[in-house]
Amino acid sequence: MGKTVRETFRMPADLDLSAIDPRGRPVGPRDKAAAAADMTELGERLDHLQEALYAEATGGSPRAVLLVLQGMDTSGKGGVIRHVGGLVNPQGLQIATFKKPTDEELAHDFLWRVRRQVPVAGRIGIFDRSHYEDVLIARVDSLVPEDVWRRRYTEIAQFEAELDEQGVTIVKCMLHISAKEQAERLVARLDDPAKRWKYNPGDLDARAKWPAYQEAYAEALRRTDTSAAPWYVIPSDRKWYRNWAIAALLAETLADLDPRFPKPDFDVDAERARLAASTVP
Amino acid sequence: MGKTVRETFRMPADLDLSAIDPRGRPVGPRDKAAAAADMTELGERLDHLQEALYAEATGGSPRAVLLVLQGMDTSGKGGVIRHVGGLVNPQGLQIATFKKPTDEELAHDFLWRVRRQVPVAGRIGIFDRSHYEDVLIARVDSLVPEDVWRRRYTEIAQFEAELDEQGVTIVKCMLHISAKEQAERLVARLDDPAKRWKYNPGDLDARAKWPAYQEAYAEALRRTDTSAAPWYVIPSDRKWYRNWAIAALLAETLADLDPRFPKPDFDVDAERARLAASTVP
Repeated sequence: MGKTVRETFRMPADLDLSAIDPRGRPVGPRDKAAAAADMTELGERLDHLQEALYAEATGGSPRAVLLVLQGMDTSGKGGVIRHVGGLVNPQGLQIATFKKPTDEELAHDFLWRVRRQVPVAGRIGIFDRSHYEDVLIARVDSLVPEDVWRRRYTEIAQFEAELDEQGVTIVKCMLHISAKEQAERLVARLDDPAKRWKYNPGDLDARAKWPAYQEAYAEALRRTDTSAAPWYVIPSDRKWYRNWAIAALLAETLADLDPRFPKPDFDVDAERARLAASTVP
Repeated sequence: MGKTVRETFRMPADLDLSAIDPRGRPVGPRDKAAAAADMTELGERLDHLQEALYAEATGGSPRAVLLVLQGMDTSGKGGVIRHVGGLVNPQGLQIATFKKPTDEELAHDFLWRVRRQVPVAGRIGIFDRSHYEDVLIARVDSLVPEDVWRRRYTEIAQFEAELDEQGVTIVKCMLHISAKEQAERLVARLDDPAKRWKYNPGDLDARAKWPAYQEAYAEALRRTDTSAAPWYVIPSDRKWYRNWAIAALLAETLADLDPRFPKPDFDVDAERARLAASTVP
């Protein structure tokens, strides 16, 4: 019996990002056409599982799923929302994008804005960036002193353990791309007028600090990889593979939760009789 | 030159709901197969238009679209979210469901909870029920005195005019079903264990007041149909036709807005040079 998708992508405890190939395809489809066929089937499964999760919540279950997406600029966070999120009923999604904190957000603890976006029962939440920025850019750009960002590893792990206790299943994905692939994607954004709005000159400033970011990512992942909130490293130089891998991870996670349609809290036969008797003028 | 989709479904000033056939197909595909082909093409157009609307907002445009869905139980509000909302990038959607108001909501003006859910710039907002409940169930069940709900017609029209001035294009759809079709859909919900969670015994109480609701709908629509916030009556006994009609309405509305990718606020050639010079160790 082979490894599960989750086992395949789960980060090793001694994570070294340079040892993971961003073009790797350790499991699943070998090419784009095979991935497309798989995605159709995964989409149907995800859609059904998500509907059951949503339905279950109407019966009082607190369960929800939270997909955290982190990765360098152009690594495909938006693409995953479009292509994986797009596989299910949008009503069952709760998408949150975390940008540079506002003054109001900065006036609070770093987890304040994140807690407000935790998916409600029955939903699949997707975080486009997250509280991990507070140990990534905050570290690389020295936005706070080292003792502050170091303390956050523990605070994050506690926060995620709380969520897990509340019934929120957390799936954290680092979209792992190469610097070469990033350069190609940035060129594509500059070249195509319909993509130019996605380009931000600040992306090159972050790119210039690539090794510092890789180090910050690796330590953040090592320090916050728990059984309640595991990290997966997704080879992301191939967009179709990245999308397939995350769809497959989610489907496996949801199948494991095995959400159930709730039992009716009314008498079905009595309602049938009431309905049959209801006449509308 | 034929009528536009908007002209076709726009309510007449002297609206009489009993004069509109819930199985009507006044324009567009005649059968499910033709509708499916149309939906594929509409989906591509909607997706592109929505991306442009989203992109435009990153350049500072305040424009957004708000689709308001109203209709009796089982009329298909959720189905429209799934099948029409599902045509576009979920990141560009902002879906709000209005249920029975909470105590906190009731402590505020009836528009308070609605204002909080107005789509931000660049998004397509979808309201699953809306402030119209405050002149529908509020009237039929006498939740407030008549002078209060009557005053709301004006308050709603003013609110919607404000939104329009702020750049929010409003598309209001009444999903028009027959009492017979509703009975069939309620039976289906009772019969199928995977649909039973959608059934609510209270639905039959509302059904018993069908004529009062039709009257409340007709008056609400007549009093709040403005050029800034027009009402469309969508024949909804056929699910595929309802979905097609709303997708087509939205596509026409967005095409008319003609959203544009913003001009870059940086020097493209200078960025190309910076990128070419950026080397990552």
